Amino acid sequence: MTTTTKELCYLSITEAGALMRSRKLSPVELVRAHLERIEAVDGVLHSFVTVMADQAMSEARKAEAELLRGHDRGPLHGIPTAHKDLYDTAGVRTTSGSRVDMDRVPSEDCTVVARYRDAGAVLLGKLAMHEFALGGPDFTTPFPPARNPWNTGHITGGSSSGSGAAVAGGLCMGALGSCTGGSIRFPASHCGTVGIKPTYGRVSRAGVVTLSWSQDHAGPLTRRVEDAALMLQPIAGHDPKDPTSSRAPVPDYREGISGGIEGLRIGVPRDYFFSRGPNVSSEVLDIVEKQLEVLEELGARVEEVSIPSLDFARSANMVIMLSEAFAYHEPNLKARAHEYGELQRASFRIGGLLKASDYVQAQRCRSVVKKEFAEVLQRVDVLASPTMPRTAPAFEGYDPVGHNRGPSYTAPYNVTGLPAISVPAGFDGDGLPVGLQIGGRPFDEATLFRVAYAYEQRTRWYAHRPSI
Amino acid sequence: MTTTTKELCYLSITEAGALMRSRKLSPVELVRAHLERIEAVDGVLHSFVTVMADQAMSEARKAEAELLRGHDRGPLHGIPTAHKDLYDTAGVRTTSGSRVDMDRVPSEDCTVVARYRDAGAVLLGKLAMHEFALGGPDFTTPFPPARNPWNTGHITGGSSSGSGAAVAGGLCMGALGSCTGGSIRFPASHCGTVGIKPTYGRVSRAGVVTLSWSQDHAGPLTRRVEDAALMLQPIAGHDPKDPTSSRAPVPDYREGISGGIEGLRIGVPRDYFFSRGPNVSSEVLDIVEKQLEVLEELGARVEEVSIPSLDFARSANMVIMLSEAFAYHEPNLKARAHEYGELQRASFRIGGLLKASDYVQAQRCRSVVKKEFAEVLQRVDVLASPTMPRTAPAFEGYDPVGHNRGPSYTAPYNVTGLPAISVPAGFDGDGLPVGLQIGGRPFDEATLFRVAYAYEQRTRWYAHRPSI
Repeated sequence: MTTTTKELCYLSITEAGALMRSRKLSPVELVRAHLERIEAVDGVLHSFVTVMADQAMSEARKAEAELLRGHDRGPLHGIPTAHKDLYDTAGVRTTSGSRVDMDRVPSEDCTVVARYRDAGAVLLGKLAMHEFALGGPDFTTPFPPARNPWNTGHITGGSSSGSGAAVAGGLCMGALGSCTGGSIRFPASHCGTVGIKPTYGRVSRAGVVTLSWSQDHAGPLTRRVEDAALMLQPIAGHDPKDPTSSRAPVPDYREGISGGIEGLRIGVPRDYFFSRGPNVSSEVLDIVEKQLEVLEELGARVEEVSIPSLDFARSANMVIMLSEAFAYHEPNLKARAHEYGELQRASFRIGGLLKASDYVQAQRCRSVVKKEFAEVLQRVDVLASPTMPRTAPAFEGYDPVGHNRGPSYTAPYNVTGLPAISVPAGFDGDGLPVGLQIGGRPFDEATLFRVAYAYEQRTRWYAHRPSI
Repeated sequence: MTTTTKELCYLSITEAGALMRSRKLSPVELVRAHLERIEAVDGVLHSFVTVMADQAMSEARKAEAELLRGHDRGPLHGIPTAHKDLYDTAGVRTTSGSRVDMDRVPSEDCTVVARYRDAGAVLLGKLAMHEFALGGPDFTTPFPPARNPWNTGHITGGSSSGSGAAVAGGLCMGALGSCTGGSIRFPASHCGTVGIKPTYGRVSRAGVVTLSWSQDHAGPLTRRVEDAALMLQPIAGHDPKDPTSSRAPVPDYREGISGGIEGLRIGVPRDYFFSRGPNVSSEVLDIVEKQLEVLEELGARVEEVSIPSLDFARSANMVIMLSEAFAYHEPNLKARAHEYGELQRASFRIGGLLKASDYVQAQRCRSVVKKEFAEVLQRVDVLASPTMPRTAPAFEGYDPVGHNRGPSYTAPYNVTGLPAISVPAGFDGDGLPVGLQIGGRPFDEATLFRVAYAYEQRTRWYAHRPSI
């Protein structure tokens, strides 16, 4: 692989779009570069479970022809993307990373894949994930766990493990992940990418394999904040096929993105995220503390806030998730239990042991968490914290139970349905990425983009690239 | 007791209000008449668990003085009311009909009782109910079951048993019931009164003992439709103490109540309510069929509609109810099980056996029921059906399990949260009342009142009185 190929693969979506429109780059060239890079490095990264090389090249040629004749479908036209393997793709197996669904070939694209197709994006393939979007890397599932481009001996975070690895490794320019307890921000943080979990109801989930109806969210990972805005734009908005999707109007996410954050009020629930949160690393906290100073330098008013119910948000998240997951998986757990990986089988069975009143109590907790977040977000515009309390652990000696506490930092936004973005915020002493999480008000993704963009432009962590 | 006393007690709220304002009747006289009637007949009816005679007389004197000096608090000023014994009343025991809460004396009025107080209503006392608002008449609870004024050998329906008996028996002019599966419309239908379950979120539940958070509703029983509108008026609207209460605007419910129903579209889900519904009596169905013709005579367009999910609405209602009830009662069921009545103890324990996934599946059913109702209510303005499939059974040989299927007709409105009213619709061959149920769109109680009022003015079933 030439240096040029890697350079092409690390362009931002905006940069690639500009080059294509000035005829300095063709979609065919761009997609070919990505397929070459997949060929070159994915034998190590394991980020793809299905590469759709022929289809992608055909889509690239179509995009090239359309652009040449002036039929411009917008900023994603000709952009190489790939999606977590639980987004239904017509005629292409959609496995959810499981032996259970190994032969499942949907007849229709899910709504969001169809929308990306309309927007002219090229689909390179389907990405690795933790089985059915739950748990950690599991060597008993049919696909090898994805590896972290910054250090392939380390995990990516999940469950959108392939999405994190593929975007960070330059194997695609944008990827959908999905998130029930943190599965977009978790790999984004560990792999040094941007990842946004939009507001519950903002993006259609029709045709997306479910884990937990009331907490699942679809959203993109990218290397740059503006790219995340571009990726969210076409998929945001009401979908008649998804009754939980909202009719709230969708703004232009790039409008005002560079407006700066002078005077913006940023709340930091320090007593939880910098103190009582489980499994915290002082190194990560020190790094994130310094990033909060950057936000202040940019003119924001950073202030301490308290959200006491953060202590039990992850528990509520887990009980609700496992209860809803069991309801979905119960028939297969009875008939085909051996086809599940060990981690997921055990977790789903826990869901079967939960009582209805456990679920009800978890929902009561949830309403307290929602109330407290709503109150705090009347006083501040956004909330800031580390995305994860630690950087990515190594596969060797990996403790899924201990690590499972990580989503304590992300899950509150699943429980509340509030939007949250993770943006790269530096590296620890081992060169592993750290993420800064910004959460906000319902349907106010635009403010999250504005904060993340201002921070990104000042810090430019994206200029660092993994050596792979 | 003189005939005059009974005559006074059977005035409508509007009639009593007019007499008081023309100085032909004093609140003191009216309240005294009710206390006399309670004294005379409640030894048989058992509708009250606590009579607050001294307080009521003192309130009546206060109302009299206020009205005399021109301080008119509105249509409920000086009106004798009584409420189901799960509405908190400051300084007055609120037992929920249970030995468990026999000594519970709230320090504050619940929001709705406070609002009635502000509206000048007089509180005569607290009314009998099925223990904790669940199940049927149970002779193992501390208070004797209320009896049906039309035939004291028959049950009242419940769980607002005392509310039905007291209103029908002329022991108060309006009473709050509460409703999780039908507990307002059920006794209203069996006792020949009006009863309305408003939209979920329309009336505050702060300070009301809960059975099932997501399905509990507060609402009034009265003998006349206009009286129900008057009773709903002050308690409708947002309450900061109840986060589930809605901020939707509250109309004047009497405005337009006499506007008639010319051209109104009334849907009848005949395939369920007149066919597949459980435990149906052909006599009741014949009676209600004739009442639908009355609605047509009044100019409404009665048409057949189909809501297939009605078949499992009651099951969803029960699973959600018992799950949420168990979450609330679990500590007491462990520590003080023997203080519960036999029926309730058994029911609540069923709630403890339900799995989280049962609850999740019930909520999925619920979303289907909601969707189907919403679709049908785009085509018709209201829905009509019998309120209950049978008239009130006798205590002798009473089968609580079979009878438990009755709320299949009312529970769909608890599952959906849609408003529904029951209005007297005649009598069976044994002289027992039949109810007509009208259900409608969210927060459109006004249309329900308009339909019920037009029907009531034409049929005047309220002119019949029990002989007791």
